[in-house]
Amino acid sequence: MANSQEHTVKAFDQDIGQLRGLISQMGGLAESAIAEAMVALQRGDAEQAARVAAGDRKIDALEAEVERTAVRIIALRAPMADDLREVVAALKIAGVVERIADYAKNIARRVPQIESEHRIDPISTLPAMAKMASEMVHAVLDAFAARDPVKALAVCESDRALDDFYDSIFRTLVTYMVENPKTISQCAHLLFVAKNLERIGDHATNVAEMVYFAATGTRLTERDKSHHGGTI
Amino acid sequence: MANSQEHTVKAFDQDIGQLRGLISQMGGLAESAIAEAMVALQRGDAEQAARVAAGDRKIDALEAEVERTAVRIIALRAPMADDLREVVAALKIAGVVERIADYAKNIARRVPQIESEHRIDPISTLPAMAKMASEMVHAVLDAFAARDPVKALAVCESDRALDDFYDSIFRTLVTYMVENPKTISQCAHLLFVAKNLERIGDHATNVAEMVYFAATGTRLTERDKSHHGGTI
Repeated sequence: MANSQEHTVKAFDQDIGQLRGLISQMGGLAESAIAEAMVALQRGDAEQAARVAAGDRKIDALEAEVERTAVRIIALRAPMADDLREVVAALKIAGVVERIADYAKNIARRVPQIESEHRIDPISTLPAMAKMASEMVHAVLDAFAARDPVKALAVCESDRALDDFYDSIFRTLVTYMVENPKTISQCAHLLFVAKNLERIGDHATNVAEMVYFAATGTRLTERDKSHHGGTI
Repeated sequence: MANSQEHTVKAFDQDIGQLRGLISQMGGLAESAIAEAMVALQRGDAEQAARVAAGDRKIDALEAEVERTAVRIIALRAPMADDLREVVAALKIAGVVERIADYAKNIARRVPQIESEHRIDPISTLPAMAKMASEMVHAVLDAFAARDPVKALAVCESDRALDDFYDSIFRTLVTYMVENPKTISQCAHLLFVAKNLERIGDHATNVAEMVYFAATGTRLTERDKSHHGGTI
């Protein structure tokens, strides 16, 4: 592929800056969505949950804007090689952040399903897991903004801790259900909440792998990636 | 955006044909993965499950090839407007098919976790749900190949039936757990299997929406889309 940089470098950098800005916005909204969904879950606040679900449209709209911007950059600037790859990476990362926000929406949507009269113990460990997942999202978007492979690698590594957290919550919830059959339906919903948080960590890790590859040209090995998805 | 078709039309059509061929291959592998994961689940066959999980790499490799091909098309042919939009759509659809295959892998990974000695009743309804989800994947890739908005719309509509199926299985499993606390851990895994199948339907629907938009220029309304994700 040609290495010539026929487009105006400065204009391209501005365009890429615009893409990065949009993705940062998406990331900020995704982090808020996770936090607000968890508050809604803890309080059993269906109205707040509905606001989280409605707010997801803003993130979808930003993703559409990333797509339009990327297509415009490609059409107008005809970027080559590395630059084109960077635009494609931004497009993919926007898609992953949108998925992360979707998981927050899924959590919010579950809130009205969970009876709030009988709050159960295991719910208390989920916010800590949510915080860990949300911090991974924050860290990976920092790594993306700074094109920092070391930060990206740290996100991949923290995914193991999140998976362990998930496994522990899964076991706790199953034990709780066995001992308190009346809570089975509620615990089943919380299992899905935990799984959604675990998936958020997986997606943050996917972005981290993209950032790592973009910055170093080296893909993380299959062994590094095989831990994805938790064990349960 | 300019409507000029400066690139050689025939060469571009061949390129797009190549992209479509790769996506068809991905779709075929994703369908097989769903079917094989369900057989492994029903038989409690951990070895077959491991083969499904390993086979996912082929789909990942095809997605990477779609990406490389799309970038090459954009770089060499400099497609404008509609053509560029079609390349971007192919890129996105490949990403969704990869996600669909990931859900099949998730199902397969659960197989070794489920004790096979005490097979339970609810497992018997899951293959029918898997068949419905798999047919949606097949139908939407047909719609994509034929650029057929009517077929695409039919996929969106069948997602409601799949969501109802999921809701019914969720309730059945919870009832089963309440009545048979020893099966709670096993049923919890099956809940996730059902949820994975429901998500496969959501993703097939996402592709259907992209196909519908590409073919008609009209987006399906929010109301049509609001049913996504099942109610539970």
